[in-house]
Amino acid sequence: MIRVADNLTITNKAIGTALEKMDRGPIKKMVVDCELAGAQAIDINTGPLGRNAESKMAFMVNTVEAVTNLPILIDTANPVAMNAGLAACKKKAVINGFSLEPKKLEEILPLARKYDTDIIGYLLYPDSHVPPDSDERLAIAVALYSCIEKIGLPPSRLIIDPVVVPLSWGNGKFQAKEVLTVIRSLPEVLGYPVRTIAGISNLTTGKGNREEKQIFEQAYIPMLAEAGLDMALFNVFHTRSVRIAKTCSMLMDDTIFAWE
Amino acid sequence: MIRVADNLTITNKAIGTALEKMDRGPIKKMVVDCELAGAQAIDINTGPLGRNAESKMAFMVNTVEAVTNLPILIDTANPVAMNAGLAACKKKAVINGFSLEPKKLEEILPLARKYDTDIIGYLLYPDSHVPPDSDERLAIAVALYSCIEKIGLPPSRLIIDPVVVPLSWGNGKFQAKEVLTVIRSLPEVLGYPVRTIAGISNLTTGKGNREEKQIFEQAYIPMLAEAGLDMALFNVFHTRSVRIAKTCSMLMDDTIFAWE
Repeated sequence: MIRVADNLTITNKAIGTALEKMDRGPIKKMVVDCELAGAQAIDINTGPLGRNAESKMAFMVNTVEAVTNLPILIDTANPVAMNAGLAACKKKAVINGFSLEPKKLEEILPLARKYDTDIIGYLLYPDSHVPPDSDERLAIAVALYSCIEKIGLPPSRLIIDPVVVPLSWGNGKFQAKEVLTVIRSLPEVLGYPVRTIAGISNLTTGKGNREEKQIFEQAYIPMLAEAGLDMALFNVFHTRSVRIAKTCSMLMDDTIFAWE
Repeated sequence: MIRVADNLTITNKAIGTALEKMDRGPIKKMVVDCELAGAQAIDINTGPLGRNAESKMAFMVNTVEAVTNLPILIDTANPVAMNAGLAACKKKAVINGFSLEPKKLEEILPLARKYDTDIIGYLLYPDSHVPPDSDERLAIAVALYSCIEKIGLPPSRLIIDPVVVPLSWGNGKFQAKEVLTVIRSLPEVLGYPVRTIAGISNLTTGKGNREEKQIFEQAYIPMLAEAGLDMALFNVFHTRSVRIAKTCSMLMDDTIFAWE
């Protein structure tokens, strides 16, 4: 299970300000800190950007690549920014992501073909609402797969995000279990070992005690790992979550166990 | 998932000495501490006992019941001690346990009928060796079920222990995954929602860094919980393991989630 940092995000005020001022320092520091904390990939979440989207995204990607060789995920709903990010990358980045939303199918998905990159597909309705259960999510996975095929992208390029929702939702606990069912069922439903990613921070968004939230994260990460999750997107400054994720990877891989 | 303390054991020197000297103090303190730490049941592991097995087991059970109302598991391979413990209990205790070992089938299993109690059945070969995989374990579960039926005990009395083995074994990681498969498969294989228990401390027995071991325990407990484990037997003084086990129970039950 690959640990992807969700820390480099515009919603972090220091990062937002640094991007606004085109100040590389705080961005570089964040990336270095994430790698030190155990990140194995970096999600660059710039939001939609707006004015100067292309130059800002290129600035962001270049800044990240200046301090790390880790794989990059580009996380924006703006196709212009996404295109600029993919063009700026020295290596291939992962597109994060598309869904059945018509605008994303028309303007984001083709970029995966253009740059021959991996692309994350969200199990969401075309109007971006979250499906109520695993059956609906699996049906959407099949629809995403068809879109990938139709555009001529190899299915191996698809990474599916089953969409973790906050536990505080009325059906939050049920949804958390349904996500596990989806991860377990996808290889059989799609007929190949499709990769999966989950945004784990979303499990505990909203109010609640910070330490308590991290315990829920620590309890859920092993469940996701055991279900077969390939990429865990979370706050890598949650030290114990990182340790538990590393331990899960060790438990789940095929090497012989040895105490370090 | 019920948290069962494995702390009250003869292999703990203070407890061994207290039992030898018939000194109630350390035993009472251990039980009170376990309950405070979050135990929901107490496993009384006296070992085979030997001389004065009956009086010592009765002393042990009485001492435990003097300070707690928690359910009790009686953990001894000595049928004489087991009988004495079951007779001494004010409430029904769980027999821990039997297996296909002929002596256990002949002398321990009938006590479940005699006292109409729950009994733990170990998925071990008749010679007490550990099966290599989930298929072998499931075949043994079917055999244990037949023994339960033959003796006229309701199958609902059976609690199955799939037998967690040390990660440090050559196939330790594989076995850890097979145990999860067994827990998931048992209800379908036996045709009813048979309860399960797992001795989690065994995962990390042997040499190794103490803190590292607890992280493995914390990673494995959620996997067991999600697989459907009913009773987790472990060291309840592992504070974080208890917190994670509690959180798993909260995630897995059917109540509406709310931050405490």
